[in-house]
Amino acid sequence: MAHGGGGRAMSRLIDELFAAAFDNEWMAAGNDAAAFTAPAGRMVMATDSHVVTPLFFPGGDIGALSVHGTLNDVAMGGGRPLYLSAGFVLEEGFPLADLKRIVDSMAAASREAGVPVVTGDTKVVEQGKADGVYINTTGVGVVPEGVTVGGNRARPGDRILVNGTLGDHGMAILSVREDLGFGTDLQSDSAALHGLVAAMLEAVPGIRCLRDPTRGGLSATLNELAHQSEVGVRVREAELPVREEVHAACEFLGLDPLNAANEGKLVAVCPPESAEVLLETMRAHPLGRASAIIGEVADSDRPLVEMETAFGGTRLVDWLHGEQLPRIC
Amino acid sequence: MAHGGGGRAMSRLIDELFAAAFDNEWMAAGNDAAAFTAPAGRMVMATDSHVVTPLFFPGGDIGALSVHGTLNDVAMGGGRPLYLSAGFVLEEGFPLADLKRIVDSMAAASREAGVPVVTGDTKVVEQGKADGVYINTTGVGVVPEGVTVGGNRARPGDRILVNGTLGDHGMAILSVREDLGFGTDLQSDSAALHGLVAAMLEAVPGIRCLRDPTRGGLSATLNELAHQSEVGVRVREAELPVREEVHAACEFLGLDPLNAANEGKLVAVCPPESAEVLLETMRAHPLGRASAIIGEVADSDRPLVEMETAFGGTRLVDWLHGEQLPRIC
Repeated sequence: MAHGGGGRAMSRLIDELFAAAFDNEWMAAGNDAAAFTAPAGRMVMATDSHVVTPLFFPGGDIGALSVHGTLNDVAMGGGRPLYLSAGFVLEEGFPLADLKRIVDSMAAASREAGVPVVTGDTKVVEQGKADGVYINTTGVGVVPEGVTVGGNRARPGDRILVNGTLGDHGMAILSVREDLGFGTDLQSDSAALHGLVAAMLEAVPGIRCLRDPTRGGLSATLNELAHQSEVGVRVREAELPVREEVHAACEFLGLDPLNAANEGKLVAVCPPESAEVLLETMRAHPLGRASAIIGEVADSDRPLVEMETAFGGTRLVDWLHGEQLPRIC
Repeated sequence: MAHGGGGRAMSRLIDELFAAAFDNEWMAAGNDAAAFTAPAGRMVMATDSHVVTPLFFPGGDIGALSVHGTLNDVAMGGGRPLYLSAGFVLEEGFPLADLKRIVDSMAAASREAGVPVVTGDTKVVEQGKADGVYINTTGVGVVPEGVTVGGNRARPGDRILVNGTLGDHGMAILSVREDLGFGTDLQSDSAALHGLVAAMLEAVPGIRCLRDPTRGGLSATLNELAHQSEVGVRVREAELPVREEVHAACEFLGLDPLNAANEGKLVAVCPPESAEVLLETMRAHPLGRASAIIGEVADSDRPLVEMETAFGGTRLVDWLHGEQLPRIC
């Protein structure tokens, strides 16, 4: 417990490990708040706490995930992310080597995204009172002139797009859970989507909704959009990009890929006349090669999500009532 | 674990409890990112994770504390706080009644401060994997024209002020710890200081440093300032405002009030010619009645903090080497 209490041991931990990893002017200044110049206009702010287990998984770790997750929330608000904060809750006795690996991964993700972590905080709790490390990240960004996205803006006739295969993150995490572990080459799709979103908004400024289908997967996201916009949603199973390995893992575990989490995917809703341009723009981006138009917004007075199955039937895509995949992010 | 997984149970928890408490347009919108209009210019961002135990203590609780703590960090950066985010890590089985009490307390603190909580996130971990609830808050604010504060700006001759009695929060927390509990009327000083700071900066825009002596207390803060500014610091024990009950509790526990945490206190450094005006301004504010000039910045090439004791001697005020008071905030 010598780290985390405001004493010299903690100060040294923060100074050396964090400032070395997050090597920027704000962290170097060593103040409790980071100062920066922001342009006037609309801003967005998003926060995400990360409790994923295990901390290291195929295709990522909690560090990179915590950067991607919040960058994506800012991007889904229509924002170009500017700055991130990071708050750590560390379990006493957590190996410093693991912490360094996680912090280095955050720093690399932040550099790659071009969005610095400008301020941070660390608390240490007794052994058994946390699960290694929990990381909160919060991000702020600016919204380009003319852009207004929101879950309440979907209109009947709008098209619904995704930028690639569904369920990769959720199934990659489950594949390495002690109690479930199964053999697969699946990797998490954890990625920062703000570059893709910037390209999409430049091509189609009139995008109505953007959302990342993380916890709860595509089904939660579509149901949220249906409720917020007071519309129906129809998707076609045949159009949903799902990897064979994800299908297989879901079958093995008795799960539905539509409920599985994603960390590098987005759902976009746009007017029908923009859908093809948006699709082409997305496919031209490295993070959108497998993009697809998966359905449309229906003129319905009930906020239901329906799916045309591969066999030509129709089924309701319902929210999960309980917890299918805990600690997935 | 049915809450926290993106399913309907979690959605209902967030919708009903959080949106009811944080009753504002951003939370009502139900998007993952909150959008707002910010003025151009310098902004500050600060983050703080809260793991205080017990969750409810004399003079406050983790909810109000998590609002005050981050508002104060923004204010110490010279910023007028604008917006807050809140990230919860909840232990499975944590009583909803306690959560409601905590969230209501956050909401009340946020309303009183005039700074809305605009976006939030909740994760649930298994029983035994957290300690009730941990709360991260992150805040953004704008810095008034002409204000530049920073821990590296103290200059020899500058005066050092505090806004009231030291160690109240730390000793109030310890008084109700299961393993230490002792009888006292002490209350935490948990309070939002941005109103006081605004008055101070209006009266003395040239304030050099502002910092809240939370974990590690006054001694950690003064040592940080000495290191960042590469100066010495001299304080006078006779000028330090410390309650009789805090003295007694510290004596009982073998602790030093200078190392005890505060949650409604600040240390200000200003040029000598402004010190009296600043002191008067602080004393005129409800949160600064017991303000005092406690010492000055010394012309020294070693970043040492020295104290003239009440008996006329001099002693070094050192950083704690270990953890005196874990989980104090």
